[in-house]
Parts: sequence; structure tokens; C-alpha cells
Amino acid sequence: MKRIDVNCDLGESYGVYKIGNDREILKFVSSANIACGFHAGDPTVMRETVKLALHHDVAIGAHPGLQDLRGFGRRNIQISPSEAYDLVVYQIGALYGFVKAEGGTMQHVKPHGALYNMAAKDAALSKAIAEAVYAVNPELILFGLSGSELIKAGKEIGLQTANEVFADRTYQEDGSLTLRTMKGALIEEDEVAINQVIGMIEQKKVQSQQGTTVPIQADTVCIHGDGTHALQFAHALNTAFKQADITRVAVSCR
Amino acid sequence: MKRIDVNCDLGESYGVYKIGNDREILKFVSSANIACGFHAGDPTVMRETVKLALHHDVAIGAHPGLQDLRGFGRRNIQISPSEAYDLVVYQIGALYGFVKAEGGTMQHVKPHGALYNMAAKDAALSKAIAEAVYAVNPELILFGLSGSELIKAGKEIGLQTANEVFADRTYQEDGSLTLRTMKGALIEEDEVAINQVIGMIEQKKVQSQQGTTVPIQADTVCIHGDGTHALQFAHALNTAFKQADITRVAVSCR
Amino acid sequence: MKRIDVNCDLGESYGVYKIGNDREILKFVSSANIACGFHAGDPTVMRETVKLALHHDVAIGAHPGLQDLRGFGRRNIQISPSEAYDLVVYQIGALYGFVKAEGGTMQHVKPHGALYNMAAKDAALSKAIAEAVYAVNPELILFGLSGSELIKAGKEIGLQTANEVFADRTYQEDGSLTLRTMKGALIEEDEVAINQVIGMIEQKKVQSQQGTTVPIQADTVCIHGDGTHALQFAHALNTAFKQADITRVAVSCR
Amino acid sequence: MKRIDVNCDLGESYGVYKIGNDREILKFVSSANIACGFHAGDPTVMRETVKLALHHDVAIGAHPGLQDLRGFGRRNIQISPSEAYDLVVYQIGALYGFVKAEGGTMQHVKPHGALYNMAAKDAALSKAIAEAVYAVNPELILFGLSGSELIKAGKEIGLQTANEVFADRTYQEDGSLTLRTMKGALIEEDEVAINQVIGMIEQKKVQSQQGTTVPIQADTVCIHGDGTHALQFAHALNTAFKQADITRVAVSCR
Repeated sequence: MKRIDVNCDLGESYGVYKIGNDREILKFVSSANIACGFHAGDPTVMRETVKLALHHDVAIGAHPGLQDLRGFGRRNIQISPSEAYDLVVYQIGALYGFVKAEGGTMQHVKPHGALYNMAAKDAALSKAIAEAVYAVNPELILFGLSGSELIKAGKEIGLQTANEVFADRTYQEDGSLTLRTMKGALIEEDEVAINQVIGMIEQKKVQSQQGTTVPIQADTVCIHGDGTHALQFAHALNTAFKQADITRVAVSCR
Repeated sequence: MKRIDVNCDLGESYGVYKIGNDREILKFVSSANIACGFHAGDPTVMRETVKLALHHDVAIGAHPGLQDLRGFGRRNIQISPSEAYDLVVYQIGALYGFVKAEGGTMQHVKPHGALYNMAAKDAALSKAIAEAVYAVNPELILFGLSGSELIKAGKEIGLQTANEVFADRTYQEDGSLTLRTMKGALIEEDEVAINQVIGMIEQKKVQSQQGTTVPIQADTVCIHGDGTHALQFAHALNTAFKQADITRVAVSCR
Repeated sequence: MKRIDVNCDLGESYGVYKIGNDREILKFVSSANIACGFHAGDPTVMRETVKLALHHDVAIGAHPGLQDLRGFGRRNIQISPSEAYDLVVYQIGALYGFVKAEGGTMQHVKPHGALYNMAAKDAALSKAIAEAVYAVNPELILFGLSGSELIKAGKEIGLQTANEVFADRTYQEDGSLTLRTMKGALIEEDEVAINQVIGMIEQKKVQSQQGTTVPIQADTVCIHGDGTHALQFAHALNTAFKQADITRVAVSCR
Repeated sequence: MKRIDVNCDLGESYGVYKIGNDREILKFVSSANIACGFHAGDPTVMRETVKLALHHDVAIGAHPGLQDLRGFGRRNIQISPSEAYDLVVYQIGALYGFVKAEGGTMQHVKPHGALYNMAAKDAALSKAIAEAVYAVNPELILFGLSGSELIKAGKEIGLQTANEVFADRTYQEDGSLTLRTMKGALIEEDEVAINQVIGMIEQKKVQSQQGTTVPIQADTVCIHGDGTHALQFAHALNTAFKQADITRVAVSCR
């Protein structure tokens, strides 16, 4: 029997601004990446999301992002590795406060958006992020793009890592994601997306946009929580996993 | 021999903006209240200040404030007790990240500015703050205005508390501080201020503006770190303590 | 034939966070209060909202608020009259940039949320706000709670003012709104709300919660833009106005 | 007789955080670039700085920056041209509010920090900034790095432009500034810096780090306002201008 972790970004509301369908999507995930107030989330949302995750028995992770609420942490900001270290330590700590207050434990850290993407290709930035995670708690698992610099940096420093794959994104022959700005970056049909994920889990392979077969490690798969279709897809993926005898389980529970 | 804790607000710089003389004032204090990014401080400043405090063997505390960098956390904002709980948990956690990363421990929590002043007179707000501190770590010591609602709430929930007194402020006959907007709120002469502090420590009394003698508990005295005179006063107070055989020591080390 | 202005708060989205149904509600209003980036709105949202209002031939007003995105400008912040002056000048100016760039003109200024409510009862704050409006452009019309200190301050300085009434709120015998925290503050039934508005327009009277008849001036009525019911109510009010031979027209077009 | 404009960044304080020596440096400049609240400055600082500039009869310009108080607008943020347009319109408008309220006029716009540097080499970003300036007021003068894309975009759209040169920076043979990260980027000796400026004004030439002579247009020279040496240099430059019969005058007064 195969096992896979399913993760989702949660707690992205801010003040009166509501985003996502956290209560519903939590039924389909094993790991929750909770925003920490820099790109999304606020202290009240964080407390409520931690509570919700614990209630659904979903593993909790910090989802640190760039300090850019206006851009939702998706715009690259030219930060030094030292600045990255500091903002990751800060945000893990902030979420830790709520996890501790609610009597839970933190499983992992997954950088968000531009920080995640910049780190994937930048060894120095990845090293700083991995050091930050390790310094706060060496037991934390570092989530990063499968095969990326972030995964390498995490292993190097001695962290457990989880290679993340995407159901709805196409891949290039070097194993990288097709840029969102390029044609065919997104997989529109649920069936194609589900088959890609199952292939990555069972055969550790994915077909690139160029038609070649690329080896890939899938420890955790990212799904989205926003919109009606997100819930439908989560449900369909869940059903497909059951049929393929793949068990959804948090990375720390393997 | 009498003992007293001397505390000071530190780490209040932000980005390129520098405030205070942290390196110098640390020589005269036993407890550092470190800003946590809401009213002052940023992740880089927090890391540097935690390092500095550990280097000088000064006890570390979180100094959570209202989310108001523009007003330096000094303007009252009408928040609910629940919002206060959340922002205190968040900020303690954020500082915890750096303390943990640097291998230190956190001694105390002292609310900042308007949050401190509002809590002093508001039992519900104080209860929420005390619950937040307790939920993150029941070993933390809660600093509050001597005899205030915050001290009462801390004791009620089972936290160790530290009654704070001010050297350079005058008192009213009900034991409250003279409002800054009133005449004679500040003590201008160092000698008068120093005598007031020593009297509060040795005799547990202070003379009110009305001329009456008011009982007061002094566990920790607050000094300022900004400006040339602040350092002179810190030095003079230190000398006066030695002459009066009063030992400066962190609250947790008694 | 009676005339009334109908105003609505618009442009309250921020970055990826969407609020309101601006495109639909614009069909039912004659004056748009556009958020200016302090409590809601961002530069991109402001440009789009100004364009939309011009397209629908709806009069444009600045909707300055307290610097509190987290609280949506609804939490009282203890600011000085001078600070209020500065933040109102700033926000009117910021919106002016977009109005000028799109070739339109600005009709009015309506303070938002806590700033509006604090000013209603605070003569000094109202004076500062009125001075700010006058200093930037004495042709601007100041919107305020009917009969409030803000209206008085606007008249005093020589601004045209518009007394605002609310369809869905009950009134006290002194002409003030029933506080939201009190029972019966909100009118739940559309028919009751519509009758109250029409009574205020036609007879310049409203029945208080205490059962007394209170004189009230209604120059502009505020409707909400968020939620499905808001659109239904706007439609029903519009129909009722037609039946009562009341024309909806911007304050500046009378 | 030659003429030159001397400009300086002003109004960069924020809340309790003070930066610069605005009162003193204003004696040596003809154009003030006033921060607009995104990378520095707040509404109160803006009002005070506008007043100060008017009092010293110094021409006023908006100094719009990226929304990054933490990084003082010096960190590149990957924004779209459309976002740049919006944030420039917003910030010009915000400053316009204060200029109008104080009875002055706005002379120019100079983008700040990372926005200035990114625009210098990015034609699309420069076009968006020039369009923003033109849309708010086509009479405004656009300041940009001498010979940069920003100057080209300004001319293209029909704005008056001012080529800016730096006294204390060395140049490359393509006319660009030596990057701060490279050796010899800064000119340490006042005499060398002053001679370079005078050469740029009188002979429209500068010697590159490579030893070649590069043609350069100098309409305005940027000096700094922070630190004791800044004032000394401003004074020395002023004296040198007098001796060389170069008159300091705002760009708009030629």
C-alpha cells in the first residue's frame, strides 16, 4: 500500500477579508500550511485555523511568506539570506505561540509563494531558510518543491524533508514546474491531473511537456482550498486515491 | 540586603530607523523588554537584540504592543479582550522563535504602551492578556503596573507577577501614576527620582502628589534607554543602589 | 417632486481580497464613497473603482478612514485632531490623483467607520476634518451623520454639507443612532426600513425607539453593497422611490 | 552663467522615528523630493515637510517609492507596470493634498530607491511611471537618472524632464552608475566629488571608472541630507558653485 501526504494552504483570511473554504477542505488534507501574518492571516485567523486543524486531526505547519499582504506574498522581493532567516524564524515562532496555546504540536514548515519559488532555485536563500527552521526546532519537517534547492538545503543541515508535487501543474524536462506565464502551465482536466499525481506516487515518474519521462519524488501533494471546484477536485482525488489503494497520511505519521 | 529588578524597553528600531542606545543601557539593566514587531522592532532587530541581551546576561522578555507602528503603540485602540489575547500569543511566539534559535530562555512578558495602560484599569483586558501568557508558557512572569488589574489577573490565573514602578513619574493618592497630560507628572530632577525609587524599594511606600503616603510594591523598576540623559540617569541610579546596598537582579533570579 | 442622494461605500477590496459587489450596486446609487487605502482599498482598486463610478455616471467621494486595515477602520483609535487633519488631507489627495487621471471630479468626502462615529460626537475632531476638506478643496461637500458635530463643523467653516440617514438603523429620541450593541439597533424587515427612509425624506421626521417623533434632515441615504440581500434591498428601495415620486440624484446635482 | 538644480530627499521620518536634518539641508537645495508614505514619511511628516520647503522657498516634488517601509523602498519588488502606474498616481495625489492645503504648487516627481533604479533600465516600467505623472498633471517635471529609460519615457510622453547626476558616485563607460556593490562605487573625497559635478555641469562630461570620457547631461544634482558630513558637503558644494559662477536654481525656474 502506497502512502501520500496531502497538504493545503489555510488560514489566509485577514480581518474582515475572507478567503478559502477551510472547514470543508480540511476533510481532504493531512497537512495544513497555516499563514503567519506576513502575506496573509492575522493573529485571530491563526488561532481559529490552528483550532480547526487540531479538531480535524490534520498536521500543522507554518507557512511563512514575504512581508507583502498587498501582493499576497507572490511578488519577488529582493531579500538577503539573512533577512529570509529572520522572517522565517519570526513566523514559525508566531504560529508556535498558537499551537502551544492550543496544546498541539507543529509538524512542518513550507515557505509560501515567491519565497518558495525563489528558494527553489537559490541555494543561499534555501540554506538560510533551512537554518532558520533547524534553529527553532530541528524536529520540524521542511516542505519544498520536489528536487529543489530547498530540499537539498534541508537534507544538508539534517532536517527531514518532504518533496512536494502539484496535481494541476505541468512539468519541464529538467523536473521544474512550467512557469505560470507559459502556455499549458495549468492542467485543466481533473482526470489528467489525478492521473499525473497517481503516476508520480506509484511510478515516481512524470511526463514532461516535452514528452520525456522525468523521475520525481512525491512525498506530499499540494491541493487548493479556494473556490467550488477546489472542493470537487479534492473529493475526486480522494476517491481516486482510495481506488488506487493509496492512503492519505501526514508526512510525520509514516 | 534588598534586591530589585531593573527593566528597560529594547529593540525598538525598525528597518533603517534607529532608536535607543541598546548596547550601552544593557549594562545597567537586569531584564530586557524586547519589542515584537507590532508597535516597533522587526525580525532582524529582534534577532540582534536577543543576541545582545544574552551576551550581557540580561533576562529576556516579550514586549507585545498594539499593531500601530505609526503611533509606536501609544495610541489607545479599542480592541476586544479576544483580540488582545491573540496579539499577545502571536508576539510572545514570534520572540520565542529568536530566543529558541539563540539557545536562550524567555523570562517575562510586559505589555507595551497603550496596551499596558489600558490593561492597568481594565479587568477583562487584563484577564485576556494573562490567559495568553499562561497559555503559551505558564512559567513566564507577567510584568504590570504595581497594584494594577494586570497584576491581579496574573495572580488570579496562577502566573508569577512583577509589580513595576517608575522612577521618573509621580503618583496619585490611589496609587496610580499621574497622567502625562497633568502638571507635575514627570520628575525632572534625578536626585528626587532616585530617592523615590529607593523609598519604594526600602519602605514599600511612595509620597503622592497630594502629600499622602501610599503603600506600593516594587519588584521591578523601569528605566529608559533613549537619549544621553537616560544613560546618565541609569548610571546614577546604579551608583545609588550600590550605596544603599540594593542588588540589581532579574526577577527570575531572586 | 422630492430628491434624495443614495450613497454607498465602494472600492473596499484589497489585493487578492475581494469585498462587495461594486458593479451591481452602482446601478442603484448616485454617490460613491471610495476607500483610500487606510482602512480598505489599494491603489489598483482605487483606479478601477473611480473608472467604474465614472462609467456609471455616479458622483465620486473620498472615504478616508483610520489607518487600520486589520480592523477595517471600525476600531476607535485615539488620535489627535491634528492627526485626523493629516490623514484626511492625505487620503483625499490620494483619491484625487486617480480622479484627475481619469478626467473626473470629486464631489464629496465622507469619513469612514470609527472616524465617522468619533467625529459625530467630537467637535474638535470634526473641526479638524472639516478644515482638512476645506484646505484641499472648499468646493467639496462634507457628508456626516444627520445633525452631528461633523455637519456643524462643516457648516461653520463654509463647506456644503449633506446630512446622512440610514435605512436599516433605528434612532433614539435625541436623534442619534441606536448603538449596534443595543437591542433593536438594526431594522430587519425591508418594508419597515423603506418606510422609515421615505418618512424621513417626505416629512423630515423619524420615529424613535422610545416612540417619540424626532425631526431629521435627510440629504443622502446610505445603503450597503455587500451580500445578496444588499442588492435586493437596493432594488426595492429604488422601486419604492419611483412609486413615491422621489428622484435619486447626487447631492451636487440638486 | 551656468545654472544647476540641487535636489535632496526629505520628509523621510515616520512616527516617532526621525531621519535626516531637513531644516539644515533645505538651505542648500532648490528642489525637495518629499517621501509619500510608502517607503518613508507619514501624513504628519508630509505636512510639516511641505510647510518647511515652502518656508525656504524650495521647489516641491513627490518622491514615490515601493510599498516597503521595512526596506525603505530599496529592495526590488517585482511589480507590473500597471502596479507602478497605480502607486505613482496614489503617492503624487497624496502629496498634492498637502501642497494644495498649504497653498503651494508641485514642481516635479522623482521615483525613489528601487523604483528609480528598476525604472532606469526598464522601458515598460518607465513608460508606466511617465504615464502616471502625465495623467495627474502634465506640467510636472520628471526627474530620472541622466540618460536613463525613465528620461526617455518622460520625453516620449511629452513631459519636461530633468537629468539627474550624482556627486558622490562613479560612472561606467556606458554612462551608468557603478553599482554600489562594486569597488570604487562611492567617491570618498569631497574635492573629487565636487570637481566631478562641476565638470558635468560645465563640460557635460564625466570620466568613467575605465578612464574614458563620457558625455552626460546634468540638469539636477542629488545631495544627501542625513549625517553631519552631508551638511558639510552641501556647504562645500555650495561654495564651489559660487566660485565657479554656477547658480543654484530649481529646474522650473530656468
